[in-house]
Amino acid sequence: MSASIRVTVWNEYRHERHDERVAAIYPEGMHIAIALPLSANPGITVRTATLDEPEHGLSVELLDATDVLIWWGHLAHGEVSDTVVERVAARVLDGMGLVVLHSGHFAKIFKRLMGTSCDLKWRVGDDHERIWVVAPGHPIAAGLGETIEIGPEEMYGELFDVPAPETLVFISWFSGGELFRSGCCYTRGRGKIFYFRPGHETYPTYHHPDVQRVIANAVVWAAPVDGPRPQFGNARPRNP
Amino acid sequence: MSASIRVTVWNEYRHERHDERVAAIYPEGMHIAIALPLSANPGITVRTATLDEPEHGLSVELLDATDVLIWWGHLAHGEVSDTVVERVAARVLDGMGLVVLHSGHFAKIFKRLMGTSCDLKWRVGDDHERIWVVAPGHPIAAGLGETIEIGPEEMYGELFDVPAPETLVFISWFSGGELFRSGCCYTRGRGKIFYFRPGHETYPTYHHPDVQRVIANAVVWAAPVDGPRPQFGNARPRNP
Amino acid sequence: MSASIRVTVWNEYRHERHDERVAAIYPEGMHIAIALPLSANPGITVRTATLDEPEHGLSVELLDATDVLIWWGHLAHGEVSDTVVERVAARVLDGMGLVVLHSGHFAKIFKRLMGTSCDLKWRVGDDHERIWVVAPGHPIAAGLGETIEIGPEEMYGELFDVPAPETLVFISWFSGGELFRSGCCYTRGRGKIFYFRPGHETYPTYHHPDVQRVIANAVVWAAPVDGPRPQFGNARPRNP
Amino acid sequence: MSASIRVTVWNEYRHERHDERVAAIYPEGMHIAIALPLSANPGITVRTATLDEPEHGLSVELLDATDVLIWWGHLAHGEVSDTVVERVAARVLDGMGLVVLHSGHFAKIFKRLMGTSCDLKWRVGDDHERIWVVAPGHPIAAGLGETIEIGPEEMYGELFDVPAPETLVFISWFSGGELFRSGCCYTRGRGKIFYFRPGHETYPTYHHPDVQRVIANAVVWAAPVDGPRPQFGNARPRNP
Repeated sequence: MSASIRVTVWNEYRHERHDERVAAIYPEGMHIAIALPLSANPGITVRTATLDEPEHGLSVELLDATDVLIWWGHLAHGEVSDTVVERVAARVLDGMGLVVLHSGHFAKIFKRLMGTSCDLKWRVGDDHERIWVVAPGHPIAAGLGETIEIGPEEMYGELFDVPAPETLVFISWFSGGELFRSGCCYTRGRGKIFYFRPGHETYPTYHHPDVQRVIANAVVWAAPVDGPRPQFGNARPRNP
Repeated sequence: MSASIRVTVWNEYRHERHDERVAAIYPEGMHIAIALPLSANPGITVRTATLDEPEHGLSVELLDATDVLIWWGHLAHGEVSDTVVERVAARVLDGMGLVVLHSGHFAKIFKRLMGTSCDLKWRVGDDHERIWVVAPGHPIAAGLGETIEIGPEEMYGELFDVPAPETLVFISWFSGGELFRSGCCYTRGRGKIFYFRPGHETYPTYHHPDVQRVIANAVVWAAPVDGPRPQFGNARPRNP
Repeated sequence: MSASIRVTVWNEYRHERHDERVAAIYPEGMHIAIALPLSANPGITVRTATLDEPEHGLSVELLDATDVLIWWGHLAHGEVSDTVVERVAARVLDGMGLVVLHSGHFAKIFKRLMGTSCDLKWRVGDDHERIWVVAPGHPIAAGLGETIEIGPEEMYGELFDVPAPETLVFISWFSGGELFRSGCCYTRGRGKIFYFRPGHETYPTYHHPDVQRVIANAVVWAAPVDGPRPQFGNARPRNP
Repeated sequence: MSASIRVTVWNEYRHERHDERVAAIYPEGMHIAIALPLSANPGITVRTATLDEPEHGLSVELLDATDVLIWWGHLAHGEVSDTVVERVAARVLDGMGLVVLHSGHFAKIFKRLMGTSCDLKWRVGDDHERIWVVAPGHPIAAGLGETIEIGPEEMYGELFDVPAPETLVFISWFSGGELFRSGCCYTRGRGKIFYFRPGHETYPTYHHPDVQRVIANAVVWAAPVDGPRPQFGNARPRNP
């Protein structure tokens, strides 16, 4: 692991350019809204990349220099090239952390690494969202109270068709009657993956201090560890 | 779930037709060697399918009439069509059980559902394999002693690059100095998946009564459950 | 495992004898209300035991003849003798299933097997409880829809101070703003444990068909498996 | 969390005073052998405590000033007072980390927090122990190769009667034919627990650089997190 954790925030960056309501909340794009508070944390350096850049901004060089990749996408999952998806997947299996936000549940890279449909229920109806911490000793819960009061947000409801998380850190309560496993930890290969639910583009969710805190905590948790790089294939006996 | 568990044993069925040593051990094919003792269990009915049949023997109709699919492949993973792989994956997510045997760790369907490389170490060198039960209360361990003495087998060694199993039932000890998580339970969607390690084609492993017992236990464990079929998408409020 | 699953329903049986409101709902006691629908399932035979019987009704003989023990207690956890608690714990570790209901979260036997405080939030205020199935392929979810509509019940809220369940089958949503991991699977030794939340004594919860279904499913899931009885202590080498 | 992680190494400290062979390997006691390399890590400060001190050296004040407690015991588990065991358990549930070494598997505090017998097979016979890393992305595996070559050690064999670890980091291979889940992570309340197998008193295991590295990694992993302190009991509605 490098001395500083090198984060790349990836954003589809379409809503903000085409929808005035979203632009009013995130005038420079959601990636900038996520990156700025994150870069205020000591020991974290942040870059951004977006869909419409060449290679979606995710060149081999940039990924090789990324410790944790944050992913927000929604409208244009299908436009992400399979080549880039496999490139990101390979980096995750080799140790890069991945933090998937909100509608990123349907991103190719998340479905590729989960193996399931990653489908869910949803409703844009100003439900009140309250996130309950159910793993208070987990590093991603550091600095939080018992709940995060999100306020009005898009509802996501169960069944969330993902593998059972290795650690379930958060569950969201929605006033309309649903709940959702909203903070889910996974390991794939040497890489760690955290899915975090809130963040619909028409709400100011990424300006919420607790949401910013969770993202920063997740980055630290998901940063690569200098563990063994496994050798595969034909192997000689190891007898003493 | 049907009154009887309907099993399909899928086999690549190439070694047995092209390699005399394998044919000597499994003259009718490994699928038959697996199917026959399985069909002796009350409440289990068994069919077989092989790679070189049309659609690899895995038509929509057959899969719809299959409760648990058993998979053995080795040489020709690349010849399995992506269409059939996605068809099987969809059935698993909808509840069909999947039992993946030995070199099936590299089958497209297994990698598709795990999201990892599924790579490992191996050696064909007559290592002694002893399987230790580490979950003695699990239904897949029913009827076993503390160990299964396999005897000479191909070695598979860690790191086995799969997601951490939801339940780890068996670990294999090899005389050459390696060990391997050899009985791994997963859930994907509504379907259950069991990976079971032993079964290299040049050893009579599928004639071993304990191996046959494990496969029968795994079939019962992986059989579909009549649980809720989730509704996805836009949802109305559920307030009381 | 015996041909029929032998269940003992244990009940504190105090509320029903001292509180008219509870007696109106459960005139013969909650144990009878739980036992009767359970005994209607083929392959399940049911007995009951209560706190004020000698040895709380849990003699060595009865426990040895019990495959799954169901536990409801509330007011008088402290009156359960430590001898009986250790007797039950030993049976669970040896394979007997244990289904702990509602306020049994504070039973000595549950805390003994969990190792944590098992504490939680609560409120008797006619909150609406809706239970969401989050593991639709699990045998305890068989026969259910996506939710169980409990209706008014006592609220239990997070943090529920238990070890993270090996499988989380249900999460409860409460209209007052809380949620709760309400269907939790554990293994301890060779025994399986299921905690199921609903069932406050002032509500007719155990007359709810889905609740009865869950309890029956849990009994089948928790029934002992004929797995290996481990040998402990000084051991000779096992080399081939 | 304090700026520096405050570790207390607890040792029974009897073998070293009564057995010349052990004294030859650990002349100042195993606690000193464990503490010295640990204290060489920046950000870790180390104290020690032993059984025969008043309150076993584990006063309320010392535990309140301890972030991670390391535990080695063997001969005299029964002499540890229940009062101190409950005091330690309460601190773990409130967030203190606990690292249990080798024969500490039978320590009262470990059995108290696991809920199982924690029994196993053993043999003092100079088996060769090789530890395989099966979670290469876990922070406790940082800086290690694929294996730790322990060399001659006491054998511990399965079944290890503990709850399935939340994360299994290591599995030990023994030349005599056994294997053992030797690096096991748990969470209880807000506290993290790591069990690490090697360390019989007649072998120089705690002088092994990789063993020292694992213990230091485990301390960092188990250090308390500033997560929410849950409120239990009667709770008012939280409706928005």
